[in-house]
Amino acid sequence: LKVFSLNSNPALAEEIANNIGIELGKCTVTTFSDGEVQINIDESIRGCDVYVVQSTSAPVNQHLMELLIMIDALKRASANSINIVMPYYGYARQDRKARAREPITAKLVANLLQTAGADRVIMMDLHAPQIQGFFDIPIDNLVGVPTLTDYFEKKNLDDIVVVSPDHGGVTRARKMADRLEAPIAIIDKRRPLPNVAEVMNIVGNIEGKTAILIDDIIDTAGTITLAANALVENGAKEVYACCTHPVLSGPAMNRIDDSEIKELVVTNTIPLGDDKKSEKVTPLSVAPLISEAI
Amino acid sequence: LKVFSLNSNPALAEEIANNIGIELGKCTVTTFSDGEVQINIDESIRGCDVYVVQSTSAPVNQHLMELLIMIDALKRASANSINIVMPYYGYARQDRKARAREPITAKLVANLLQTAGADRVIMMDLHAPQIQGFFDIPIDNLVGVPTLTDYFEKKNLDDIVVVSPDHGGVTRARKMADRLEAPIAIIDKRRPLPNVAEVMNIVGNIEGKTAILIDDIIDTAGTITLAANALVENGAKEVYACCTHPVLSGPAMNRIDDSEIKELVVTNTIPLGDDKKSEKVTPLSVAPLISEAI
Ligand SMILES: Nc1ncnc2c1ncn2[C@@H]1O[C@H](COP(=O)(O)O)[C@@H](O)[C@H]1O
Ligand SMILES: Nc1ncnc2c1ncn2[C@@H]1O[C@H](COP(=O)(O)O)[C@@H](O)[C@H]1O
Repeated sequence: LKVFSLNSNPALAEEIANNIGIELGKCTVTTFSDGEVQINIDESIRGCDVYVVQSTSAPVNQHLMELLIMIDALKRASANSINIVMPYYGYARQDRKARAREPITAKLVANLLQTAGADRVIMMDLHAPQIQGFFDIPIDNLVGVPTLTDYFEKKNLDDIVVVSPDHGGVTRARKMADRLEAPIAIIDKRRPLPNVAEVMNIVGNIEGKTAILIDDIIDTAGTITLAANALVENGAKEVYACCTHPVLSGPAMNRIDDSEIKELVVTNTIPLGDDKKSEKVTPLSVAPLISEAI
Repeated sequence: LKVFSLNSNPALAEEIANNIGIELGKCTVTTFSDGEVQINIDESIRGCDVYVVQSTSAPVNQHLMELLIMIDALKRASANSINIVMPYYGYARQDRKARAREPITAKLVANLLQTAGADRVIMMDLHAPQIQGFFDIPIDNLVGVPTLTDYFEKKNLDDIVVVSPDHGGVTRARKMADRLEAPIAIIDKRRPLPNVAEVMNIVGNIEGKTAILIDDIIDTAGTITLAANALVENGAKEVYACCTHPVLSGPAMNRIDDSEIKELVVTNTIPLGDDKKSEKVTPLSVAPLISEAI
């Protein structure tokens, strides 16, 4: 068994290798002068079960090509099995044809990974669980809720309500609420008339309570910060937020810093770059979870 | 028949559409806030023979993903055939396992294009003609020599010798020399002892002649500028250089400007960005050639 890291998640990969009690496999992943990815695997892997740790987080196209080229190299070097640890699965949000002539990138990426030669993929909180069916190889879809819940349990918060920021996330909120023995609420955004601003309607009782917003991905943080502010306006005592995948692109950090969110708890499926560090953001490690799945 | 352009080569695509006498198909190719490629095809293509113009030049991973996602969208929108016009085929130089555990990216990219749904690919001057065999779909490999030769013929240069900058390019130099009714010469680089500088040995007579160096790709321009300087040192009257694919990365432009090369003639398989414009560089269009192949 060998674990290799590409460029998206070196710290997580190191932690996973430590947990398993091995050293990270030696490889160098750089680019040629023209930007093409160059990979050198610096130790034999013939006959080994190889695990490659790589999230397809930003820069997503670069990280995806690193992964595909690594898989190609491992296959040609006679690895026994090529197992991908992809804590964050990019391109997952284009997972259906919502409009005419749209691509389904989540399926395209699944096909690309299989064509390159992946034998198994370990992921976390897929944006839609149906994406597992886009693959014809074994998929493990690990769940972030327990890691996030454990953190909040240790905080000993009073009178909690777990809030889903939209209809799509209610099942996830329910799972966390069960563990915390708390009720749930839902932000029910709707537009009463075309060209009229959206109304943030709150379904459920949040008055005087400590609200915990939970989502799978926080990208530009528009939804989650509007939800947090609506909760406070409607009488919540304080608002925490959490998610598995901190994409945090574009205006996200400013929005979070300016919002009513007291603390944002995330996991390290995507590392927090220097531009994403904030006193409000607490990262938790999923390395123990992944090490167990390996 | 419809022609679409992605982001690598909009001017060439426009020219090709003009030559055929149609308008470019309407599509928008941008990125979401997190860097994932977003493509909207803004007209119906059901039942059409679609041509997509895209070189996998820098940023190569971005351009490749744009292409794969476009192919996916066209396939799902019921195009009759999906034809890729890829004047420059990136990742072509990793086309064999030269060392242990190397990937073969040229084959990987062929597999990715076919997996996405390409039916045919039109390319130019593949780095190795064997790459055609990496595909199981029809490939047209157009040749740049006639376009480059025509330009030099019009210049009416006296006493020409066509020079290959290395052993790999002799066949190409021979083709150009035949058309110009000129002799050839070869730069025979070798290292007499380990850790001793390379010697630029010139095979063939270049004394007092006008030398034309020809290569398929000029990337960092190390080889071609050293060759040009060696030719002048050894008595060539003046040195022109030409290539099909002006990758021109890293130190290339400085090296060319500082070298004995009088003029560098290239084609527009890769557009010359603002950082690659120089009085020494003359771009020729391959649009007529490609339009004919369509
Ligand atoms: N990378 C992305 N950034 C922002 N929006 C996206 C991205 N990928 C897909 N989408 C859009 O997000 C929507 C799907 O999100 P959801 O309804 O949460 O599954 C679709 O309308 C997509 O067009
Ligand atoms: N994008 C690239 N930039 C520079 N060198 C490369 C690139 N891709 C492959 N190579 C190297 O170029 C050599 C092959 O070039 P050639 O002998 O001209 O076919 C191999 O040693 C490759 O490792």
